[in-house]
Amino acid sequence: MYCHRCSQKAAIRMPHHRLQLCKEHYLAWFIEHTDHTIRRYHMFDRSAHILVAVSGGKDSLSLWDVLWRLGYQVDGMYINLGIQSEDDYSNRSQRYAEEFAQQRSLKLQVVDMARDYGESIPEVALGSHRGHSKPCAVCGLAKRHVMNRAANDGQYDVLVTAHNLDDEVAILFGNTLAWDTDLLGRQAPVLEARPGFVRKAKPFCRFYERETVAYALLQQIPYIEEECPYAVGSKQLRYKTLLNELEEERPGLKLNFYVKYLQARESGFIQPRPPEEGTEAEAHRCPSCGQLTTSSGLCTFCRLFEQA
Amino acid sequence: MYCHRCSQKAAIRMPHHRLQLCKEHYLAWFIEHTDHTIRRYHMFDRSAHILVAVSGGKDSLSLWDVLWRLGYQVDGMYINLGIQSEDDYSNRSQRYAEEFAQQRSLKLQVVDMARDYGESIPEVALGSHRGHSKPCAVCGLAKRHVMNRAANDGQYDVLVTAHNLDDEVAILFGNTLAWDTDLLGRQAPVLEARPGFVRKAKPFCRFYERETVAYALLQQIPYIEEECPYAVGSKQLRYKTLLNELEEERPGLKLNFYVKYLQARESGFIQPRPPEEGTEAEAHRCPSCGQLTTSSGLCTFCRLFEQA
Repeated sequence: MYCHRCSQKAAIRMPHHRLQLCKEHYLAWFIEHTDHTIRRYHMFDRSAHILVAVSGGKDSLSLWDVLWRLGYQVDGMYINLGIQSEDDYSNRSQRYAEEFAQQRSLKLQVVDMARDYGESIPEVALGSHRGHSKPCAVCGLAKRHVMNRAANDGQYDVLVTAHNLDDEVAILFGNTLAWDTDLLGRQAPVLEARPGFVRKAKPFCRFYERETVAYALLQQIPYIEEECPYAVGSKQLRYKTLLNELEEERPGLKLNFYVKYLQARESGFIQPRPPEEGTEAEAHRCPSCGQLTTSSGLCTFCRLFEQA
Repeated sequence: MYCHRCSQKAAIRMPHHRLQLCKEHYLAWFIEHTDHTIRRYHMFDRSAHILVAVSGGKDSLSLWDVLWRLGYQVDGMYINLGIQSEDDYSNRSQRYAEEFAQQRSLKLQVVDMARDYGESIPEVALGSHRGHSKPCAVCGLAKRHVMNRAANDGQYDVLVTAHNLDDEVAILFGNTLAWDTDLLGRQAPVLEARPGFVRKAKPFCRFYERETVAYALLQQIPYIEEECPYAVGSKQLRYKTLLNELEEERPGLKLNFYVKYLQARESGFIQPRPPEEGTEAEAHRCPSCGQLTTSSGLCTFCRLFEQA
C-alpha cells in the first residue's frame, strides 16, 4: 500500500476519499483540509482571536496544534471537571493540556470547577439531595456556561471546539431519530453569535475520529487515551457503534450523512425556526455571574452551583 | 398477562402503546385504529371507490379484510410477477389472494406480467442482454405503472397499499441517511393525485409488522409467509434489522421516529419542493399504453417491456 502522492509506504488509507497517504503527506493533507473546512464554512480568518476548548484528548490537542501551525491566534482553555476515577482522569487530562501548551509557548487558561465554583461536576450531579444518576447533563451545561463566559470575558471572537465527524454524526443521528426540530435546527459547523453568546465553530466536523487519532499519533502529540468514565453506556456511544457497523458495510456513509444534511439545510429543505419571539427580549443579566439568561432570577448554572 | 379491557388472557402486548389485549379486543382495536388513521390523514371516506394492491401476504390481505369489515367499497388487484422460486412464490401468492376474495365475494383483478406484458419480472430484469443483477428496481417500476394504470382505467378514487410502520420506517431511515430531499419530500401517508396519477394512501402506516401478523393470525386469514426470494440482502432488510435492535432497547422508537417525522412535515420544518417547473407541462401520453409520461417517446415501463 503506497502513498498516492509519493513512493513512500502509506500510513493511512481513507476509502471514503479514495486516498492513501504516507506520514508526511497525511500531516500536510490534514492541516490543509482543516483550513479548507474553516474557509468553506466561513468560520474565522487570521485576524480573529480564537479560544479553543481543550480536554487533553486527541481531538482538541490536534485541533489546537493545527490552528497554531496554520498561524491562527489561538489560546486554549481547560476545564477541570473533578472526575477522580481510578486513573485520576481530570488531573491527568489537565497535565496533557498543560504540557502541550508549555512546549509550544501557548496560553492556556485553566478553570477548576471545585476550586473556582465550589464543587466538582460529579459532586454537583451525584449529590444525593438532587438524585441525578448521570453527570453528563450537568457537565454539558457547565461546560457551555464556563466556556462562553471565558470567551466573553476574554473578548474572543470565536469559541472553537474539536467535535469530529463521528461526534457530529452521532448527535445528528439522535436528533434525527427523534426529529427534534429545535436541535436539528441548531446543528451546524458554525453557530453565529447572539446577544450574550459568542460565535462557535467546529473545524474538525468533517474528520473521522480515526483521522484525528492518526494525526495525533503521527504528529507525536501525547494525549489522554481514556474516554470519560461516565460515557460508558451513553446513547451517543450506542449510536457510534451502530453507525460504525453501517460505515463498515458502506465506506463513506457517515461523511455522506453529514454532508447531505448540511446541503439539505443550505437548500432550504430544512427550515430552522428562529428563537421564539420575545425570548431574547426577556433575557436579563444573572445577578450572580452577569451572563445573559432567560431563567427568572439566577441563571441555571448559578442555581445549580450556588445550591452546592 | 391479562387484557386491559376485560379479564381474558392477553393475546398481544404493545409496550409502545402501554397496552395488552385479548384476541377479541385486539381485533376490534386493530380495526378501529385503522379507521382512525384513515380519518386522521384524510385518506378517503365511505363514498370512495378504492383499489387495494394485494400481494397475498399478511399486510395486504389484512388491510383488505379490515377495509371490507369497515364497510368501504374496495376491490383488490393482484400482480403475478412470475417469480418461480423453489416454492412457486408468485403462483402460490396468487392462490392466497384468490381464496381470500372468493370467501368474501370480493372482486379481484389479476394482472399476469408474462401473460399480459410478454415477460415476467425476473425475465425482464435478469435478461443477460440488459445485465441487471437484481430485479427489485424493475419490479418497483412495473408495480407502480401497472397499479396506477389499473386504478385509472377502473376510475378508482384512491389506490391503497399495505405498507406497515416497519416498511415506512426502513424507507424513511434510508432516505434520511442519504438526506434525499426528493424522496423525503414525497414520503407521507397520503400522496395526492396529480395529472395522470391516482391518489395513494397507506392506512397501515402506523402498525408495527408484528401487529399486522397478529391480526392475520387471530383473524385466521391464510397468507403466504415467505418473503420474496429477491429481498434477501437488500438495504431495506438491513435497516429493519438495525431498527429492530434499537426498538428492543427503547420500545416505541420506530413509531416515534415516524410520527415525529410527520409532525416535522406538518410544522413546516421540512419543505417538500414542488415538482420542477415545466415537468408536468412537458408530459405527454405514451403512444403504447396511453399513460402520462415525461420520457420522450415510450414511457419507461413500455420501453422496458417492449424490448422484451
